[in-house]
Amino acid sequence: MKKISILGSTGSIGTQTLDVISHYPDLYQVVGLAGGHNLDLIREQMNRFRPAMVSVATRELAEQLRTEAPAGTHVYYGPEGLMEIAAGNDAELVVTAIVGSQGLEPTLAAIEAGKHIGLANKETLVSAGHLVTEAAARRRVTLRPVDSEHSAIFQCLNGENASRIHKITLTASGGSFRDRTREELVGVTVQDALKHPNWSMGAKITIDSATMVNKGLEVIEAHWFFGLSYDQIEVLIHPESIIHSFVEFVDFSIIAQLGLPDMRVPIQYALTYPDRMSAPAERLRLSEIGKLNFSEMSFERFPGLALAYESGRKGGTMPTVFNASNEVAVARFLQGAVPFLAIEEIIAGVMAKHHTVASPDLGTILDSDAWARAEAERIVKESFTK
Amino acid sequence: MKKISILGSTGSIGTQTLDVISHYPDLYQVVGLAGGHNLDLIREQMNRFRPAMVSVATRELAEQLRTEAPAGTHVYYGPEGLMEIAAGNDAELVVTAIVGSQGLEPTLAAIEAGKHIGLANKETLVSAGHLVTEAAARRRVTLRPVDSEHSAIFQCLNGENASRIHKITLTASGGSFRDRTREELVGVTVQDALKHPNWSMGAKITIDSATMVNKGLEVIEAHWFFGLSYDQIEVLIHPESIIHSFVEFVDFSIIAQLGLPDMRVPIQYALTYPDRMSAPAERLRLSEIGKLNFSEMSFERFPGLALAYESGRKGGTMPTVFNASNEVAVARFLQGAVPFLAIEEIIAGVMAKHHTVASPDLGTILDSDAWARAEAERIVKESFTK
Repeated sequence: MKKISILGSTGSIGTQTLDVISHYPDLYQVVGLAGGHNLDLIREQMNRFRPAMVSVATRELAEQLRTEAPAGTHVYYGPEGLMEIAAGNDAELVVTAIVGSQGLEPTLAAIEAGKHIGLANKETLVSAGHLVTEAAARRRVTLRPVDSEHSAIFQCLNGENASRIHKITLTASGGSFRDRTREELVGVTVQDALKHPNWSMGAKITIDSATMVNKGLEVIEAHWFFGLSYDQIEVLIHPESIIHSFVEFVDFSIIAQLGLPDMRVPIQYALTYPDRMSAPAERLRLSEIGKLNFSEMSFERFPGLALAYESGRKGGTMPTVFNASNEVAVARFLQGAVPFLAIEEIIAGVMAKHHTVASPDLGTILDSDAWARAEAERIVKESFTK
Repeated sequence: MKKISILGSTGSIGTQTLDVISHYPDLYQVVGLAGGHNLDLIREQMNRFRPAMVSVATRELAEQLRTEAPAGTHVYYGPEGLMEIAAGNDAELVVTAIVGSQGLEPTLAAIEAGKHIGLANKETLVSAGHLVTEAAARRRVTLRPVDSEHSAIFQCLNGENASRIHKITLTASGGSFRDRTREELVGVTVQDALKHPNWSMGAKITIDSATMVNKGLEVIEAHWFFGLSYDQIEVLIHPESIIHSFVEFVDFSIIAQLGLPDMRVPIQYALTYPDRMSAPAERLRLSEIGKLNFSEMSFERFPGLALAYESGRKGGTMPTVFNASNEVAVARFLQGAVPFLAIEEIIAGVMAKHHTVASPDLGTILDSDAWARAEAERIVKESFTK
């Protein structure tokens, strides 16, 4: 029995992780679950998987859940609760599917406790890639990507000498506005932006796909996951999202990973790695798909991606600032406070004001995150409020 | 220095192998070269690479070459010469790029002598897969595929647990007649048949691509290379020949190998395996290609492929008979003696008359090969000569 903890069990990745685990009750045991405010769902998960510990967002929720917890299940809450789920039990793999910078400390704690990481929290590598990869190497734990692009690269590198990588290419569907010019983006609505062609995802990540900021965050993650320079990481528009990403080696042989869009496949791979098991997925039949299309990525069309590369190359606290300012900008766009094209403007504005700190510690990262959010709010207020 | 011998050094695969080797004079040393009748070319290769031994087809050619051989180069000829190049020197890898059943004995001898095999001789696995794989396992040598499809599968299996393969798919360009119905094949000329859309190859293999017999031989080879049942091997039409082949694992994750058509990449991989080195090849740029197309294989349209599966499933001497009867039929088609559609008829006719011998030894295989050729000639004579 492999023991698993999940940070963010009530979100999209968390519930799909539990779906995978539920197919293999003899192989996996859930020992820790951290949810947020969704008491009904965490209660249901608690009763179904009977972990040794659960955690929720607040003391009030914890007190309520405690009265209903089965014998042997301890209930925690807040940031300390997250740390317990991450590092205070005997899980050998922790899936970090929590959103935002709150995922940083628990992930580092889990690594220090010697646990393998199924990594779905973007901030972990975007903001603290230098800390996380150093700790993982020192503690000899594997960082296993959970999102489809990095899982694809991870799978393509199986049995290969990583020093023989020439370049990797992350594929991008192009998002909900891929066929529009920048001129045609003026005045687009939130509803338009939320129509992603291939994947059904949360609002934030759907907007990030439309601005290509999501792909930019993935580029930064790939830099850390695979130890590659930014010149070695390319992005290619591939509307069908069938080739999830690929590696080109020095002999110009390309190894690619393909499949239908189904997050449970990369999630399961993070659990079964380096082995594989049958998955609750559908077979890809290329003859039914018929055609795969590819076109060059344009940094002029998608300045959000150019900003991501710029922040990654500057390094230090700049990727944190890139990510935090984007979060504020997207939240304000979703509220109707700023237009779609303002998102990139806000990110660029905050980045222009930031003085990068190299090799930041966790405190400096969190400070930069807070500073960038405040600065983004200031720009929203000054430039977009009459 | 890795020492290499080449059986068939003057053919297409042989010359490309020497091209690869010539890029790495510090890494590879040619110790044996076996050519055929092309004295000028084998002489040039002998003087350039200065192997310890060369071999040519006949005693006359050998005697002439001997007068010009540099000090330290021994000259052999005929079947004994092939055996010397295969097993009579200190090569650690033998590239078997010789054509036809004459490749069988030297390949087995090389394996018994403990040499790794860069395998480009189809008959080796089609006719004697059971003998070759048994010997390779016993002598702990690797069989490294040289053609692009099997090299693709071989690369996709790096670091993977082979028992987790669900299916593999060999891609097929469709050959020179891929857009024609069977009705439109009546009366096609040799010139039409020789126009392969993607690869520039010899006449025989170009015809085999048009009949899909080549893909059928590859299916049988894949059965032996990768220890798969015929139900696990599929063929997909992919006109661009960019995805060279792929593996689908039990989790329905697909790993594919891609590249521009250039035989030097798989040849080099057989030399560098399990490592890779920079190759004298061009980068594949999917954004320039734009589109990859796929369509289902039809066994009705390509009965040559159906016959291959049938021969493989029957096993024993039947794949030898399939291959030998095809060789006769294609030779007669190229001479203008029989029409294009007769090729499948001849194969089917010979197979229908053959009584399969299970687990044949080398003598039985060669007897079946000779019997099938005679039987095919008999059908040509009786059915197609007025």
